[in-house]
This record gives sequence, structure tokens and C-alpha cells, in this order.
Amino acid sequence: MQSTYPAAPELAVTRWFNTAGNPTLADLRGDVVVIEAFQMLCPGCVSHGLPQAKRIQQAFGDDVTVLGLHSVFEHHDAMTPVSLEAFLHEYRITFPVGVDAHEPGISLPITMGRYLLRGTPSLVVIDRAGRIRLNAFGQIDDLYVGAVLARLIDEPRPEPEADCDPDIGCPVPS
Amino acid sequence: MQSTYPAAPELAVTRWFNTAGNPTLADLRGDVVVIEAFQMLCPGCVSHGLPQAKRIQQAFGDDVTVLGLHSVFEHHDAMTPVSLEAFLHEYRITFPVGVDAHEPGISLPITMGRYLLRGTPSLVVIDRAGRIRLNAFGQIDDLYVGAVLARLIDEPRPEPEADCDPDIGCPVPS
Amino acid sequence: MQSTYPAAPELAVTRWFNTAGNPTLADLRGDVVVIEAFQMLCPGCVSHGLPQAKRIQQAFGDDVTVLGLHSVFEHHDAMTPVSLEAFLHEYRITFPVGVDAHEPGISLPITMGRYLLRGTPSLVVIDRAGRIRLNAFGQIDDLYVGAVLARLIDEPRPEPEADCDPDIGCPVPS
Amino acid sequence: MQSTYPAAPELAVTRWFNTAGNPTLADLRGDVVVIEAFQMLCPGCVSHGLPQAKRIQQAFGDDVTVLGLHSVFEHHDAMTPVSLEAFLHEYRITFPVGVDAHEPGISLPITMGRYLLRGTPSLVVIDRAGRIRLNAFGQIDDLYVGAVLARLIDEPRPEPEADCDPDIGCPVPS
Repeated sequence: MQSTYPAAPELAVTRWFNTAGNPTLADLRGDVVVIEAFQMLCPGCVSHGLPQAKRIQQAFGDDVTVLGLHSVFEHHDAMTPVSLEAFLHEYRITFPVGVDAHEPGISLPITMGRYLLRGTPSLVVIDRAGRIRLNAFGQIDDLYVGAVLARLIDEPRPEPEADCDPDIGCPVPS
Repeated sequence: MQSTYPAAPELAVTRWFNTAGNPTLADLRGDVVVIEAFQMLCPGCVSHGLPQAKRIQQAFGDDVTVLGLHSVFEHHDAMTPVSLEAFLHEYRITFPVGVDAHEPGISLPITMGRYLLRGTPSLVVIDRAGRIRLNAFGQIDDLYVGAVLARLIDEPRPEPEADCDPDIGCPVPS
Repeated sequence: MQSTYPAAPELAVTRWFNTAGNPTLADLRGDVVVIEAFQMLCPGCVSHGLPQAKRIQQAFGDDVTVLGLHSVFEHHDAMTPVSLEAFLHEYRITFPVGVDAHEPGISLPITMGRYLLRGTPSLVVIDRAGRIRLNAFGQIDDLYVGAVLARLIDEPRPEPEADCDPDIGCPVPS
Repeated sequence: MQSTYPAAPELAVTRWFNTAGNPTLADLRGDVVVIEAFQMLCPGCVSHGLPQAKRIQQAFGDDVTVLGLHSVFEHHDAMTPVSLEAFLHEYRITFPVGVDAHEPGISLPITMGRYLLRGTPSLVVIDRAGRIRLNAFGQIDDLYVGAVLARLIDEPRPEPEADCDPDIGCPVPS
């Protein structure tokens, strides 16, 4: 049963780059979503994780929504939003990137904790029904990622849930 | 309609390496088959095509049947089966590799002609129903190849065709 | 005549990392000095310039003094000393790195201007007599750099100049 | 004393490619000579050794004489001169390449034995006086090779030896 896949927790983001909006997983329900969690000063993110996210963006286009998540868990003063903005510009990253939020005094960012990420880079893939289908730390093979994404793209969009009003009833979804 | 995909012509092979058998596409009907057409002295085959075929073999295991096809269309005396055998040993290629056959006096090998390959390396992907679903020359992106293969792996195996005897009738396939 | 090589201008550095001292070219007179000018958010510096500086450090050891120079001419708020310090830690850069100084209101840093650097990464090589022998922007071939450095290493150390006192005379250098 | 470097044994070559002549180390006395010993079916030679020899050819031009030596010690039937010729063409190797000779019944080729090479690829560097100054198996750092070559290029050409006739005397070398 597919229902055994865990539900993807919502993102906790303080600021977005490369988008005027405020993307939420709730709004993206129905899309296949790739989250590339990174730190701008993490060498493996620069050499492997982020280039792979760019390749996914190019190979799958509108079939996949690629989001970056700047999940800083060390050197906080060194990887501020100001530095991140320049980094995204210099490395020509064009997909939306959110800054993972922190609880006061806690080094591990909130979204990173919700997803139990083991470090950066991490690649998280969420299906159309909002469930986590891949959550991998480190380098992941492109052939494998391509296979995972193709299968999720081909899964049917979930039926929109009826927005029932207890006082009135359940209208047919538009 | 998927029926518009061209049927994969049978291989014309004079000799196989890395297998005691004599693989034919007819026998492999029902499998997803990858054919890596190469020449052992083609630099792009050595640096890109054959390593990709190895990665496919490792990433998909029994879900995909990887075959090499040594389609020599130049320097015929330099790329004999004797040289090929040493090449396969030194480059640690373990999937079956067939030597593409030649008509006497024709430089282009037979299978290469049947598939209208544009050169080496070429990657041909055949679905479970024996149809060509990808036929690409040069470097092909791993994410894309992974996506193609996942979709073909997930397609149902075709119903075995009844082996009808016109004098007796059509037995139920075993 | 070697005397036609330009004298290397002194470094203008506000802060050093990876050294307790305050290296100056005057103090390094007699050494072969390599200056890798970079910006921490410059992709070519991360992928080519800084790895080459590390390789020089490893290949030549004490025969060459490798210095990094963080010459920020854009995104100044993004590449502060705080960010640089974390960058050096994460990228395991162990040679001394100086922060190129700025005149108030001038984007181009002072040392970068003195050396007429065309951008980052730039590789500057200074001989034992304090003269510029290589000043190259972009990617430079390792074979070529190795040849340049070997020749400079083999040049004799310059005679120490007599420290003449106009009122007394010129003592023999110790 | 430099005289402690071993004299480079003469090459034993049955056939040359990429040259109409028959290069000998005796004739090349006075030149800095690089010998890239390889086998055409040796993966490390294809990926590292031969590309480095090409880079040396490009970086040093007429200052260094680059020679290839096809030292086949295994799969002899697979790496014949016919195959080698096609290999050199396909891999665009333009420096002279000699086929290392064999004693009948001995697998290790003659020149390879004379130089005590440990395998392929091996890089041998010979100075202007005909002495071995580098003899290294496997991957060698470009910075190091560049440094070695620069120093040998800068060494003076040896005095031509007087060609003395015991019955007449010693004429001044022309």
C-alpha cells in the first residue's frame, strides 16, 4: 500500500529567493516536488547536490517542482541570507530557495529536523499526494533519481478532497 | 497508441562474449533491453557510452538486460574479436557483447544498418513488447535514461501470443 | 635582463587567517611567493584556482610560500571576514589568507588594484628578488605553473642589501 | 654529482608511427626526451598517461621531445601494430610512437625490461646528457612533471664529444 509512505511535513521558511511567492507544500499538492537541502559553504553541496538539482530542473522542466532549502546547522553567521543571495547569483541557481527557519537557540533548523535530514546535501522527493518517497543524504546516482522521478510523475494526481462544510454539506470539487 | 513504436529488428551477431548463450531479441521478449552500440577504439564510447552502460547494469540489475554490440564500421582490421576480447577484459565489461555481423564487402555492419544508427556510441532501448523506445547517438543524460528505463520497467509484460497450429488449433499459452 | 620584471607591490591586508603573523612581501624577500587572489563566492576560484593553490602547496612544500588573498570586488556584504573564515574551514584551506583592504567607497580592493588583476581567480608568482614573474587571470595549466616555479626556486637568493647609515657607513650584512 | 644518474638504455623498436624516421636516443642526445610507455588497451594509459603526454607536447613544444612507446606485455594478439595505428588515429596522438620489440618467446618487451618499468603507463624523462632523471609508474602530478622538465630544459647541452681517431688524433667537433 502506498499509504505507508510518510506525509511530508510542511516547510518552515523565513524567506524565499528566486520567487515572489511563498511556496508551501500544501499549495504544491498535486506536484512532484524535489527539495535540495544544502548549505552554501558545504563543498559537497556545491560540487554535487546543487548541480544535480539544476540537472533535474533542466531534464524534467514543468513535470517536477525543484526547491532549494538553505538548512544551515553550523557557521550561522557565515551563511546569512545576504551571503546566500550573492551565492545564488554567482552560481546561477534559478529555482526558488527558502531559508530554513530556526527556533531560538537551536542550531538545527526546523525543517531539517522535521525531515530528520542526516546532513547536507540531502535530496528529498515528495509525490503528488504529499508523501516522502525519497530522502537521501550525500551523493545519489542520476540514473536512480531519474527513475524515481519518472515513476512519481506518472502517478495520478490525487482526487481533490471535498471541502465539506459541516453546516451545509460537501460541494463537488471544481 | 504505443503500437506506433517501431519493432526492434533482430540482432545479427557473429560471436558473443561474456555469455555462453546466443541471446536474441526474440528470446528476450518480455524484458527491457538496453543495447550499447560501440567500437572499442571510439574515444567517446570508452569515456561515456560504455561507462553509462555499466552504470545502467549496476543501477537496474535484473530489471534491465544490458547488451553490448560491437558495431565496427571503420578500422576493421584493428578491432577484431581478438582485440575486443582483451578490451572487454581490461575495461572490466561483464555484460554480454555481440560482434555485429557484416555483409561481405560492406563496411557498415548489419545490425547497425537495421537500426539506422548514426554512429558510435549509440544507446538503443527496447521495451517488453520488442519495440524501439529510444535510439540516441552520442552522450545522453543519465537522468533522462533513468526516467525512460523506469517507465519501460513498469509497463506490463505482453501477453504471450498463442502458438497456433493451423491444423490443430490454438493451445492456451503455458 | 631580469631587472625588467616589475617589482611586486606590497600587500594591503586588513586581516589574516591561518597565521598568527602579519606576512609582508618585504619579510618574504628571498622566498618564491605564490598569491592566489580569489573571492569565496567565485565559482571558478572554488573549482580551479584554490585547488591549484592547494596542489602547489603540496607539491612544493617549503620551496614556495603560498598565500591566499581575498580580493572582494562585488557582493561585499556577502563575503565578510566572518563568512570567509567558515569558508576556509569547510574547504580545508590551510595556507595564510589575507583580506584585501579597501579604500572607503571604492569597490576594487587596494592590492587587486596595485597588481592590475583582471578578476578572480588570479595567480601571481613573485621571485626571490620581489619581482612579479607571473600574473595570470583564469585557469592556468599545471605543467606551466610547475615549470615557472621550478625555475624561480632555482634562482639564487639575492644578496641582502647593506643597511647603510648615511652618517656612519655600510655595515657588512649579518 | 649529476653523473650518478643512470644512462638511458637505447630503445629497441620494431616500427615507428607518426614519423618517417627512426628516432634513437643517440640521435636525440642534447634534447630533453619524454617517453610515455603505454599499452593501447590499458585504461589508465588512455585516461591519464597519454593525455598527460599530449599536454607535455602542447605546453613545452620544441623544448621537449615526446615519444610514445607501445610496450605490450599482455594480450599480444590484441594489440598489434595494425590495431595501434587505428588507436593513434582515433585518439589523435601525433607524437612519434615506437613499438617496443620482443625477444622470441618473452612476454615482456625489450625496452620495458631495459628500463625496469613496473607497468603501464610509465613516464620516463631523459636529460640532455642521455641520463634517466625520472622513471615513474602510474599517475604523476602535472606540477611535479612541469618542474622536472623546466629544470632539465635549463641544463646546458653537453659538449659534443671529440670523435677521436686513434691513428690520427682528435678533430675539433664541428
